[in-house]
Amino acid sequence: MIWPMLRWLTAGESHGQQLTAILEGLPAGVRVQTTDLDAQLARRRLGHGRSARMSFEEDVVTLTGGVRHGITQGGPIAVQIGNTEWPKWSTVMSADPVDPQVLEGQARNAPLTRPRPGHADLAGLQKYGFDDVRPVLERASARETAARVALGTVARQFLDQVLGVQVVSHVVGIGPVTVPSGVLPGPADNPRIDEDPVRCADPDTSGLMVAEVDDARKSGDTLGGVIEVVVHGLPPGLGSHVHWDRRLDSRLAGALMGVQSVKAVEVGDGLETARRRGSVAHDEIELVDSVDGGQSLSRRTDRAGGIEGGMTNGEVLRVRAAMKPISTVPRALDTVDVSTKEAAVAINQRSDACAVPRGSVVMEAMVALVLADAVLEKFGGDSVPETRRNVQGYLDALPIR
Amino acid sequence: MIWPMLRWLTAGESHGQQLTAILEGLPAGVRVQTTDLDAQLARRRLGHGRSARMSFEEDVVTLTGGVRHGITQGGPIAVQIGNTEWPKWSTVMSADPVDPQVLEGQARNAPLTRPRPGHADLAGLQKYGFDDVRPVLERASARETAARVALGTVARQFLDQVLGVQVVSHVVGIGPVTVPSGVLPGPADNPRIDEDPVRCADPDTSGLMVAEVDDARKSGDTLGGVIEVVVHGLPPGLGSHVHWDRRLDSRLAGALMGVQSVKAVEVGDGLETARRRGSVAHDEIELVDSVDGGQSLSRRTDRAGGIEGGMTNGEVLRVRAAMKPISTVPRALDTVDVSTKEAAVAINQRSDACAVPRGSVVMEAMVALVLADAVLEKFGGDSVPETRRNVQGYLDALPIR
Amino acid sequence: MIWPMLRWLTAGESHGQQLTAILEGLPAGVRVQTTDLDAQLARRRLGHGRSARMSFEEDVVTLTGGVRHGITQGGPIAVQIGNTEWPKWSTVMSADPVDPQVLEGQARNAPLTRPRPGHADLAGLQKYGFDDVRPVLERASARETAARVALGTVARQFLDQVLGVQVVSHVVGIGPVTVPSGVLPGPADNPRIDEDPVRCADPDTSGLMVAEVDDARKSGDTLGGVIEVVVHGLPPGLGSHVHWDRRLDSRLAGALMGVQSVKAVEVGDGLETARRRGSVAHDEIELVDSVDGGQSLSRRTDRAGGIEGGMTNGEVLRVRAAMKPISTVPRALDTVDVSTKEAAVAINQRSDACAVPRGSVVMEAMVALVLADAVLEKFGGDSVPETRRNVQGYLDALPIR
Amino acid sequence: MIWPMLRWLTAGESHGQQLTAILEGLPAGVRVQTTDLDAQLARRRLGHGRSARMSFEEDVVTLTGGVRHGITQGGPIAVQIGNTEWPKWSTVMSADPVDPQVLEGQARNAPLTRPRPGHADLAGLQKYGFDDVRPVLERASARETAARVALGTVARQFLDQVLGVQVVSHVVGIGPVTVPSGVLPGPADNPRIDEDPVRCADPDTSGLMVAEVDDARKSGDTLGGVIEVVVHGLPPGLGSHVHWDRRLDSRLAGALMGVQSVKAVEVGDGLETARRRGSVAHDEIELVDSVDGGQSLSRRTDRAGGIEGGMTNGEVLRVRAAMKPISTVPRALDTVDVSTKEAAVAINQRSDACAVPRGSVVMEAMVALVLADAVLEKFGGDSVPETRRNVQGYLDALPIR
Repeated sequence: MIWPMLRWLTAGESHGQQLTAILEGLPAGVRVQTTDLDAQLARRRLGHGRSARMSFEEDVVTLTGGVRHGITQGGPIAVQIGNTEWPKWSTVMSADPVDPQVLEGQARNAPLTRPRPGHADLAGLQKYGFDDVRPVLERASARETAARVALGTVARQFLDQVLGVQVVSHVVGIGPVTVPSGVLPGPADNPRIDEDPVRCADPDTSGLMVAEVDDARKSGDTLGGVIEVVVHGLPPGLGSHVHWDRRLDSRLAGALMGVQSVKAVEVGDGLETARRRGSVAHDEIELVDSVDGGQSLSRRTDRAGGIEGGMTNGEVLRVRAAMKPISTVPRALDTVDVSTKEAAVAINQRSDACAVPRGSVVMEAMVALVLADAVLEKFGGDSVPETRRNVQGYLDALPIR
Repeated sequence: MIWPMLRWLTAGESHGQQLTAILEGLPAGVRVQTTDLDAQLARRRLGHGRSARMSFEEDVVTLTGGVRHGITQGGPIAVQIGNTEWPKWSTVMSADPVDPQVLEGQARNAPLTRPRPGHADLAGLQKYGFDDVRPVLERASARETAARVALGTVARQFLDQVLGVQVVSHVVGIGPVTVPSGVLPGPADNPRIDEDPVRCADPDTSGLMVAEVDDARKSGDTLGGVIEVVVHGLPPGLGSHVHWDRRLDSRLAGALMGVQSVKAVEVGDGLETARRRGSVAHDEIELVDSVDGGQSLSRRTDRAGGIEGGMTNGEVLRVRAAMKPISTVPRALDTVDVSTKEAAVAINQRSDACAVPRGSVVMEAMVALVLADAVLEKFGGDSVPETRRNVQGYLDALPIR
Repeated sequence: MIWPMLRWLTAGESHGQQLTAILEGLPAGVRVQTTDLDAQLARRRLGHGRSARMSFEEDVVTLTGGVRHGITQGGPIAVQIGNTEWPKWSTVMSADPVDPQVLEGQARNAPLTRPRPGHADLAGLQKYGFDDVRPVLERASARETAARVALGTVARQFLDQVLGVQVVSHVVGIGPVTVPSGVLPGPADNPRIDEDPVRCADPDTSGLMVAEVDDARKSGDTLGGVIEVVVHGLPPGLGSHVHWDRRLDSRLAGALMGVQSVKAVEVGDGLETARRRGSVAHDEIELVDSVDGGQSLSRRTDRAGGIEGGMTNGEVLRVRAAMKPISTVPRALDTVDVSTKEAAVAINQRSDACAVPRGSVVMEAMVALVLADAVLEKFGGDSVPETRRNVQGYLDALPIR
Repeated sequence: MIWPMLRWLTAGESHGQQLTAILEGLPAGVRVQTTDLDAQLARRRLGHGRSARMSFEEDVVTLTGGVRHGITQGGPIAVQIGNTEWPKWSTVMSADPVDPQVLEGQARNAPLTRPRPGHADLAGLQKYGFDDVRPVLERASARETAARVALGTVARQFLDQVLGVQVVSHVVGIGPVTVPSGVLPGPADNPRIDEDPVRCADPDTSGLMVAEVDDARKSGDTLGGVIEVVVHGLPPGLGSHVHWDRRLDSRLAGALMGVQSVKAVEVGDGLETARRRGSVAHDEIELVDSVDGGQSLSRRTDRAGGIEGGMTNGEVLRVRAAMKPISTVPRALDTVDVSTKEAAVAINQRSDACAVPRGSVVMEAMVALVLADAVLEKFGGDSVPETRRNVQGYLDALPIR
């Protein structure tokens, strides 16, 4: 899988001084400012089922490169997100060596030797040759997704300003509770859904989801679920059929499966499509009257989720990600202490009962980054006006719309 | 998503002279020969539900670079797969211009203007500015997967010779028919499963699947399904949690979703995991007696499919891909003729009723390529002995196995 | 260094069945046919100082993918170049194992154990763990550059058809003989230069170069030299200053240094620039009357070679590559036999006295490939008309030309 | 050209709040701390000919990710370098919009409309559609190289700790003054050379260089020069001949040409090699007595600069970069004001008379990053002990050393 145009890296540990992220390859002229990032990061902190940590975790965002007076300048965009708890961790997580006496006796510095099932802990310890899972969990933690949301904010500003594209999402399942089929948020529905405690677009189902989360929390248990990201306003022709790793579905699947906890990815109707017969699995094409008095092509359904042959087809894009329940289960799971090689219960870090609602904001960010890359791959351009002009030229020349 | 070590490209059209593929980055010293590729390509031609075309399609494989006397030489490996029908297509698909009189009146040369729902046809035509879908379907066709299977053969030889890794697969669902849970092929089960008409590992389910395919074909319809790829013998620590695109699950998801027709990808128990509670969704860790009289770590279950934190954990790797039913439905779907802009029925290319059984061989190839890359990323090495030595050194040094 | 849009791989051995190459990422609609590739490959076979091999080496080119009726189709382009000597090598270089009796006694199959100074031989043998340098020299051989010239032909067709860009080259030095300063081929000078026995644009110098080559050959010696590639018609703004590996000079330097035998690369006046003072090292900017009656910006000189800040500036692009003398010196050099560990003289493969004239055609190909990639990076587009429209829109919008 | 294993990005503007850099892909277990980065950044501020700015510019370095208690943790490494002048620029370079009244009348905020010849100014303005060159020069400035030096420090710690590799450099030419041939710094010579005012390893030449710089400064002029980077302790077999972009010389050339002001790159004797005949241009191979009483292979000379066939050959690596004189010439050059379209003199930013001495520290950093990547490509490994073990296994198995 390739990212032809955009490159981005994130760095930083869960209890480190800050997260750092750089996004390289975006055109000049995108309007974005700190408050835009704040707003998206605040959405990521929402959601019923969040732990105490999330409520006091405040993301202190600083744009440290690539943006001047609210406009991108063509160069790499750098963001840092400060950790408000850093003072408590400044010696334990210090980059530089610390006097052993300072560390001695700090509970936070004690080696973590009871790896948690479902986490990176044990495999990470083996891979990197550690005898403490601290370095693994610090980097594997979902805290890192804040950096992705920050960069994704820039990508979605670009998509909006160049194409009017809107990325929305909703939670379609928590544990066994799922929304009825047919629920589909519109281009402007994020604010409404953000007000729902579990980011569910269907009020009735939302109540059931909340109850399920409450029950899980009471039982000392955790829940996963399924998120759908819905994108409005995409032109046909992003991605390509010509090579497997230019396929947009491939790139989206890699991006979503690259988020912590995701165990499945679906495009459009996904697994359901595999159970249907061909005569009722695809989206028939027809002519419809368009607003300007002419006729344009349309599909009667959107089972494909807006992607055919690895390309957008001009319909609404729909992709889903299924998150496993949080692995840090209060009713701790069995494990082995790697220092004593004896049976033990897994370490227990403070955690949420259900991370799915805020996970949806992370999925939006990943989708926005993939799409911004695909737009630049097809349309090029070093400034918003240039990319926009190229898009318009393409749309105007389409023999069939 | 990245492929740090291996690069590969495929080229060629469905009715062109040949498919061409190059794999760059594999160490020297891998034993592989034409018969190995023949054997895998023959497996790809198997399967109940295949069309007439598949039965007479014979893949004429030539290794044209990178291998000498059955041993890879360190350089790029080139493979070509001849098209036995080429004489019929040599003017219509000629690379060079052809006298118009020669083309005139050839049915095969007539512009295809009725795009098929579910295919790349319409979006591809719009993206590339064509007025004929021929160039799109020639490249989007699943014929191209033969090239992947050829390269995947080299990757699996490497995995076997360096690590003893075995890649197997089975069909776990066709349309609504699914295998009971718990069916899991062992390291050597491919030959047995190859003999099943639908590559199902469970004989009872196989019969139901065959009946389903027969029924669909009789109704002029098509079927999709779900494939599981199972990999035995992987060490812990392939992939990484440190950056999203180094995660092995992300790389596998991108690779599988990059195969024609795939609409969903699952790792381990996938979507089912999202419905479970945390206390019963993960794989608890315990000490077990190992064959050499000592003790080693083991997981009681394999719900995670052998991947935690984006890394192999030493358990059996399991990934699933869901294929939609073939889009070329004999009962042709509604579409619009792009030349006349009138309603029409979609073009109908000869096709199978169900491509899932042979799809499983393609999925194996994609998984093998991803894993070979991940092995080289972790262990390096420019020859099989060197990579093998590095693997052994790592395993020997693991404090906990 | 990145290649955002184009990917390409070459495969094949010097005495193998064929070279194979794939170029992925080029738009649809580029006019190219076999005769175009033939013509460029024929230019690569020209040049005083070539060995007997070159004269009978005939490149049998076949376009096996991506092109139909003389037009690219958007998918990967595959080329193969047959080896007319293959029948003599078919067992010695067979991909598949060969009966040892067939190989026995064939001189061509004897292990090569006396590595040549200046070649990949010894380091390659150590890196890959061989005990015979055959696998190294087969792939390291300059024969491989034929594949690059073939792909470069497609790239230059694209550049010409989208932008009217012309890539020319000339030999500016052979051994100690150099052209006077100020010799600069125009957009259409390649044919004239091709007729010169050493591809020198200055007739007087050409005579001296020919004499130098003749003298070296007589002495059983070899010669290197310096090539300049000159590109006319580039717009300003290809490449970028925003990240080191987007700089066009960086990408050109990597590409040229990636050609066999190159030991130095210069942009514009190169090393000479480092000896000048700042007041006379740069290209002052002025207004000049343009053909349409207005005024446009121009630079008084082109010391920078058309690249400032890692970007094209709209002036003529000039880059130079210095090739070392051919390492296979008829007066064989001292080495050590790796099988006996005794002093020996290096193996002697048939070779040219001077490869610089035909090297210039390879350098053109590399430059064309880099530029095609940079054009797509800036302008995007999936078809020649689309990319051309995007270019025109950019040029029309330039406030200052 | 590829970077198989390491990825890195830098961000930030010359007068912005800070530079930010991330390096991804380095193993765990590398010992590095802030003082190591401070030391290298201090070396970058050395050098006769530096401007007033350099003397008060103090790099405030913070490691913000990837390192704990002086040891890398396997995850991305983040560094930021604060700008001590930021308070003066905080509104003019603010990421967020600023009240126009605050900006009004600030000289620092005035649009820069007289592009400097030799800089990115004009081409950057055209490419990105700006009407002020401020955004271009802020990012194109050599200030950015501080970020590379910081990351390069981590790379050189890795090279030293895994292989004992030492990267040194010296200035071999300033303007027309060049060191005599044969001057070659040893593995530990950096400290001695750092004390020289122009980082020249030859004291006599140093005096001449200093006089040249003084003269240029007096004349309101600037100087370029040539830097040689010398690397001791590399094993044979880094890089490869098998594909052009795996060649180490190609990767080094791209990296060095990717540094601001570089106009030429040489490997080994470079251009001089192109003037020699083959019989005296290569490095003959011989057996020498090794310290352990056995015999090992050696080359009589190092004309190739330690790279043959795109691979290290075990000899000393030598690469050179030629920097043009600083483009901001006090005696300002002619240009055109892009706002008025009238002839003008170029803007004059405070600058050095000669940046070559400190440029050498940047070149070391680029070489270290390329080599660290090549070491990981060949040897893999996720921790220093693992990579070291793989290296040792390779060296022990070399049949010929």
